[in-house]
Amino acid sequence: MSQVKILLDESDIPRHWYNVVADMPTPPAPPLGPDGNPIGPDALAAIFPDAIIEQEVSRERWIPIPEPVRDIYRMWRPTPLYRALRLEAALGTPARIYYKYEGVSPAGSHKPNTAVAQAYFNHKAGVRRLTTETGSGQWGSALAMAGQMFGIEVRVFMVRVSYEQKPFRRSMMETWGTEVIASPSSETRSGRRILDSQPDSPGSLGIAISEAVEEAVSRSDTNYALGSVLNHVLIHQTVIGLETKKQFEKAGDYPDVIIACCGGGSNFGGSAFPFFADKAAGRKVRLVAVEPESCPTLTRGHYAYDSGDTEGLTPLMLMYTLGRNFIPPSIHAGGLRYHGDSPLVSQLYHEGLIEAVAVPQRTTFEAGITFARAEGIIPAPESNHAIRVAIDEALASKRTGEPKTIYFTLSGHGHFDMGAYDRYFAGQLEDTSYPDEAIQAALADLPKVARNPA
Amino acid sequence: MSQVKILLDESDIPRHWYNVVADMPTPPAPPLGPDGNPIGPDALAAIFPDAIIEQEVSRERWIPIPEPVRDIYRMWRPTPLYRALRLEAALGTPARIYYKYEGVSPAGSHKPNTAVAQAYFNHKAGVRRLTTETGSGQWGSALAMAGQMFGIEVRVFMVRVSYEQKPFRRSMMETWGTEVIASPSSETRSGRRILDSQPDSPGSLGIAISEAVEEAVSRSDTNYALGSVLNHVLIHQTVIGLETKKQFEKAGDYPDVIIACCGGGSNFGGSAFPFFADKAAGRKVRLVAVEPESCPTLTRGHYAYDSGDTEGLTPLMLMYTLGRNFIPPSIHAGGLRYHGDSPLVSQLYHEGLIEAVAVPQRTTFEAGITFARAEGIIPAPESNHAIRVAIDEALASKRTGEPKTIYFTLSGHGHFDMGAYDRYFAGQLEDTSYPDEAIQAALADLPKVARNPA
Repeated sequence: MSQVKILLDESDIPRHWYNVVADMPTPPAPPLGPDGNPIGPDALAAIFPDAIIEQEVSRERWIPIPEPVRDIYRMWRPTPLYRALRLEAALGTPARIYYKYEGVSPAGSHKPNTAVAQAYFNHKAGVRRLTTETGSGQWGSALAMAGQMFGIEVRVFMVRVSYEQKPFRRSMMETWGTEVIASPSSETRSGRRILDSQPDSPGSLGIAISEAVEEAVSRSDTNYALGSVLNHVLIHQTVIGLETKKQFEKAGDYPDVIIACCGGGSNFGGSAFPFFADKAAGRKVRLVAVEPESCPTLTRGHYAYDSGDTEGLTPLMLMYTLGRNFIPPSIHAGGLRYHGDSPLVSQLYHEGLIEAVAVPQRTTFEAGITFARAEGIIPAPESNHAIRVAIDEALASKRTGEPKTIYFTLSGHGHFDMGAYDRYFAGQLEDTSYPDEAIQAALADLPKVARNPA
Repeated sequence: MSQVKILLDESDIPRHWYNVVADMPTPPAPPLGPDGNPIGPDALAAIFPDAIIEQEVSRERWIPIPEPVRDIYRMWRPTPLYRALRLEAALGTPARIYYKYEGVSPAGSHKPNTAVAQAYFNHKAGVRRLTTETGSGQWGSALAMAGQMFGIEVRVFMVRVSYEQKPFRRSMMETWGTEVIASPSSETRSGRRILDSQPDSPGSLGIAISEAVEEAVSRSDTNYALGSVLNHVLIHQTVIGLETKKQFEKAGDYPDVIIACCGGGSNFGGSAFPFFADKAAGRKVRLVAVEPESCPTLTRGHYAYDSGDTEGLTPLMLMYTLGRNFIPPSIHAGGLRYHGDSPLVSQLYHEGLIEAVAVPQRTTFEAGITFARAEGIIPAPESNHAIRVAIDEALASKRTGEPKTIYFTLSGHGHFDMGAYDRYFAGQLEDTSYPDEAIQAALADLPKVARNPA
């Protein structure tokens, strides 16, 4: 049998992150303040350290990875690139399928790639305390672990529906010494405002971000950390794609298509952007973002300026959005339940340089179970979205007889999501399509700035 | 920073398992039938395929690993050997601490090392169906996954207390296509007999084994697979120690002490026996088995012939035992709740060639949390037992100032054990010492054979 895992040495951990801004055909649109005017870097200083703000606005292609960050990366990186020989055999496809497994991190997903970087830069700036939000718990776990590594106290606002569905993600964060609060909570003005009008609110990432940002803004010893969406987060995640490229080189192969699930965009951006550099240089490679039909930000959202949180505490960003007041159905891929999307991913999609596809929930679990039975690993529900599309590509290859090299990122394991698998087996999972009316209504909700639809 | 992970290539996966019998100073005592006379290999033919029976009685030092088994091993093997630099720093010890992480297997522990082998040999013998028992769920998960890989239907009798404490282990097995039954169940005569006298029995491995063996014996299409205790199981697990030796060679170091938790003995035997070969050849290395104070088989049990299950369906084996009717306290290290111990481990301990130590439950969680906060990975409660002793060794090294090379096996992750961590944090975990009266009472329970105490 051929090699199953394509491994790299610790010395192969990238020494620089890649910044896709350097290769984008048009510069990214600036974030706007509440007055509709572009904001400068200093507007972010209340919640981010300087090093992060510099990365956020950087146009440099390569950003150095500090050695203390690489030292923590060594604990699980480089992650393995797998050749999915058993899945290929199960599907009877002539396609070659590869996946990179980010679930080997102690927190079980790709999220620590940026959590460790953010904890380090805050630690270096003398920050002792970080707040954040978490949906499925993957980001919160990652920051809990990373905070512990640098002696930073972490407080996590966890979307209530996930807090209830995934009590053991909370225990995991507590094991790493972190306090977890169900959001909306009564601890912030933003939370109380929501609870007043909707006491049984399931919460949303937008609300949890409002709470975490509010607390960071109101305390001088406290900064905020975001797990996705922003440029610096996607920059940190490019260790995924940079390693993948080295691994394909080692395997003597190159992908025809890169597939990754896309919520806020950090997994997709981190996986695909280093390949965008090749694409920009003329190489043929498709980059496909996969989102849930119940939260179809890229495929059915508006491309407009909107805020990143429900309360409008963040700057306005030009992105695909379902509206900041969007509260998505309680699907199980909690990491994909966000109203907006990374401005970088949004712009590349808007310019036709990347693809996006929305898939229904049940079919993603079906794909994940097929994968688990062939490859052993039980995937996170988020990752099942990428697996669905990868399997569809492989089956198309089978129909046409055309061999093809398919890559997807297995962004995390499903060890804390077995309740969702239970409900799938019990026939209790729904396919929720997002209603047209809500998409229309979001238009009226958009902030009134000159560049937005009237 | 030095290398954190000492990795091997897939080509370094051992081509042979190691059989410690070849290096033991005295041959192992034979298993006995109910009449007290040694049984031959054919007595096992009702539940095991020939290849497994040959391994069970083999005295060959090296047993070839079939290529289809190595091909499945490639999915996660060789497992990494970690240098615990951050734990060393946290403890301020001059000791060098290493651990091999078996939790990278899809089932999350070392158990697939033998599950895959057993599924393969049964598949090759034309068996379509396997029954087994599981305590913490790690063995059941491993056999569920392995069965799926070879197209074998698997039925798992899961100790009721674990079934209730760990519903997501059940979901995991179901995701791999396996049926899970809480034990004692009404599906077997053995189960019904227990339920009649004790309807709320928490179950035990001994009872679950009775149920699984009864079903395998009564159906001609069905074999039985055991996750620990027997010689062939420990043989398969030696891939752990064989890889560890190669990794120490690569690191230019050699352990002064090998530490592994010990329930039925498969993790300890698999980790330590390849080093016993060195010890037998004159090299100085300590081999330490760690068990819970609440189930002190080696440290306080009787060295006597006893059966492996509650109903007396298995042959009698000479081993340390707390008595086959032993029902241990519902501690959280479900994988260490077994009345007996591997005859090979027992004999080596009886002859003073290995060490054993029993540790209380709370202090193992304390050690596991110290480990998680330094090294990131959240360990299984079973593994916390080894971590406790490894930390104690490192602290002793700190006191004496003597550098030392300490190795322990991190046999699995704790992703399905977060409820136990919750209870630890809530102060609800007890330190249960096993009562002297029960140890005395077990004497009277021992089977009446010539070599047992009267």
